[in-house]
Amino acid sequence: MGHLLDKVRENEPLIHNITNKVVTNFTANGLYAVGAAPVMANAIEEVEEMASIAGAVILNIGTLTTEQVEAMVLAGKSANKNGTPVVLDPVGAGATSMRTKAAHRIIEEVELSLIRGNSGEIAALSGVETEVKGVDGISELAKEELAKQAFNQWKVPIVITGPEDVVWDGKEGISIFNGHPLLTKVTGAGCLLSSVIGAFLAVEKNVLQAAESALSFYGVAAERAAKKTSLPGSFQIEFLNSLYDTTSEIVEENKRVSPFTEAVKSNG
Amino acid sequence: MGHLLDKVRENEPLIHNITNKVVTNFTANGLYAVGAAPVMANAIEEVEEMASIAGAVILNIGTLTTEQVEAMVLAGKSANKNGTPVVLDPVGAGATSMRTKAAHRIIEEVELSLIRGNSGEIAALSGVETEVKGVDGISELAKEELAKQAFNQWKVPIVITGPEDVVWDGKEGISIFNGHPLLTKVTGAGCLLSSVIGAFLAVEKNVLQAAESALSFYGVAAERAAKKTSLPGSFQIEFLNSLYDTTSEIVEENKRVSPFTEAVKSNG
Amino acid sequence: MGHLLDKVRENEPLIHNITNKVVTNFTANGLYAVGAAPVMANAIEEVEEMASIAGAVILNIGTLTTEQVEAMVLAGKSANKNGTPVVLDPVGAGATSMRTKAAHRIIEEVELSLIRGNSGEIAALSGVETEVKGVDGISELAKEELAKQAFNQWKVPIVITGPEDVVWDGKEGISIFNGHPLLTKVTGAGCLLSSVIGAFLAVEKNVLQAAESALSFYGVAAERAAKKTSLPGSFQIEFLNSLYDTTSEIVEENKRVSPFTEAVKSNG
Repeated sequence: MGHLLDKVRENEPLIHNITNKVVTNFTANGLYAVGAAPVMANAIEEVEEMASIAGAVILNIGTLTTEQVEAMVLAGKSANKNGTPVVLDPVGAGATSMRTKAAHRIIEEVELSLIRGNSGEIAALSGVETEVKGVDGISELAKEELAKQAFNQWKVPIVITGPEDVVWDGKEGISIFNGHPLLTKVTGAGCLLSSVIGAFLAVEKNVLQAAESALSFYGVAAERAAKKTSLPGSFQIEFLNSLYDTTSEIVEENKRVSPFTEAVKSNG
Repeated sequence: MGHLLDKVRENEPLIHNITNKVVTNFTANGLYAVGAAPVMANAIEEVEEMASIAGAVILNIGTLTTEQVEAMVLAGKSANKNGTPVVLDPVGAGATSMRTKAAHRIIEEVELSLIRGNSGEIAALSGVETEVKGVDGISELAKEELAKQAFNQWKVPIVITGPEDVVWDGKEGISIFNGHPLLTKVTGAGCLLSSVIGAFLAVEKNVLQAAESALSFYGVAAERAAKKTSLPGSFQIEFLNSLYDTTSEIVEENKRVSPFTEAVKSNG
Repeated sequence: MGHLLDKVRENEPLIHNITNKVVTNFTANGLYAVGAAPVMANAIEEVEEMASIAGAVILNIGTLTTEQVEAMVLAGKSANKNGTPVVLDPVGAGATSMRTKAAHRIIEEVELSLIRGNSGEIAALSGVETEVKGVDGISELAKEELAKQAFNQWKVPIVITGPEDVVWDGKEGISIFNGHPLLTKVTGAGCLLSSVIGAFLAVEKNVLQAAESALSFYGVAAERAAKKTSLPGSFQIEFLNSLYDTTSEIVEENKRVSPFTEAVKSNG
């Protein structure tokens, strides 16, 4: 499925990000590196218009304000009218009630293509009791189960990322084992990933395929960057380089993915 | 005219940027690298005071809000009172009506020293029909003509940047052929350029001279950075390095500029 | 006292930053590199909740809005209820009256653990006449005296940074002579330092010890980074790398600190 990467690079989809103020620059540079065209627009007055010309819309609640929640709902509804994919990244859901409420409101009012979060965020949002210990202290099995329960609640495909990533679209699931711990030392690595998945959704409506391609590409790119350096400052730069020069062939050779199904037993 | 770079480095002018939230960090680091002193201040309550002590004011509409438009007009008028140069960067004009309107309002209410945009933005703002295909798919001749028509509309010197840059001050024009395609892979390369032109205007009121010096310096710095790397993450860093260690002598040796005049025939 | 660095790395304190929009990314990456966990949250609706779970709260007025001042006071008071350290970084105090007023209001309404600024900011805030010529053109002796007078005014420990740093806690003082001029070429180097001091305060309530450890660590890390490069773009990256791999042993071997006391005579 590495060819989706080539499709992103051919089509250069415009990705409209309403995102937090920590990661705007890194997200834009990361999307350029991948081959997409980033745009940021946050004002209530212009988000509908911007979303209407975008190939995908990313809603990231990392540094939320009341006004920005309104803008996100407007942008999301505008995208919905055009059948444009919308990704929600519920950064910090569970940390404050404002974030949890905002995420719930967006889930209710916008037809989402996909929600991407870490275990803690998805657990907090869905109210599912998990064995979460620290944000990423959750077994693969529990992660699959959490994704399924969250899907059942909202009928929205779920991506849970961490040392290993899982995608669940309601019928089929895939685990992706690529990636590198240095990603956790670069702020916005998760946020950029949500935007990159958006870029893949812009060229492929099948969520499972788009997410698998995006996640394996992202993980392989991180692994290649980590071969150049073990330090976080340099890793940030090498990762941008790697997002730029990792080809679909390299992804296909190095991806480690494994499907899973309904049969997985709850661990919760 | 490379000596203007030395003058910037001697005078370290304070450059007041009201700019979009994607490029704040890169703009500040870029201005430091050039030798200027960046300041960001956006609140309606303080922009007039800050603009009054600045050597130049940059108004960039990249992630606009209604309040920020007010702040830009206030800052611009404050700069006008002191004869301080004001540069408008109409990022994304044409993409949404909010941006186009905001740019028009600023052009009307503030006495601008210069407007810098790409072909698409200047065409959208001026309503001039061009052969624009994609943002930079415009011939040099058409770019010169577009700059002239935009000048005639607003009586403000115009800089249109792209693979080649043009400046038109109403009487004389200059094309600058320096630069590198990797600049398009770094978010904020255009925004920083507007701020750098502002730094040159802070030490030289002749717009044509200031713009030519700034543009040739910026382009030569990019070319030098591109000799160190062909990857966008590393290029961003090498470009900051190059803005810091490119001397006026290096610019003079490597600049490729060519004057043009009224005589150029419309291509529109 | 290098062991405080190890304590930060063991405890990974959550550092809640309400900071300016130029430095959010660099601050977050810097805190990750040090070993702390950054969080940014600015909305009035959530800052109290976020501050209540943080190990330290940093209030930075670099790109202030009226609403953000309210949020800072709320976050500060919430931290005070829990005995959580609060650091004020009065960026640009004196440059506009809005900033000076905001800083004064925060000093009045929040119980601060520490104020960190450069000589110009502390002088402007305290109204103390100094020999300041340019932001860092102040002798060490004058800096010590300025810190003492500012302390006497607010009864809050003061850190004044520059080519050499001073800490004064009301009884004892320490000068730190580590650091490197390239820090002045990276935007947000001072802002990140305030957040790093916050991370040390999160694991050590003795302000003098926490500040000395943080400042000597930060300065030694800068010196190590400057051995890798003399260019500002690369220095930013090498500095992040160095914040990550500078150990407490390296700090102890390389720190240059010197205590001072009440006896220092005014130079003002």
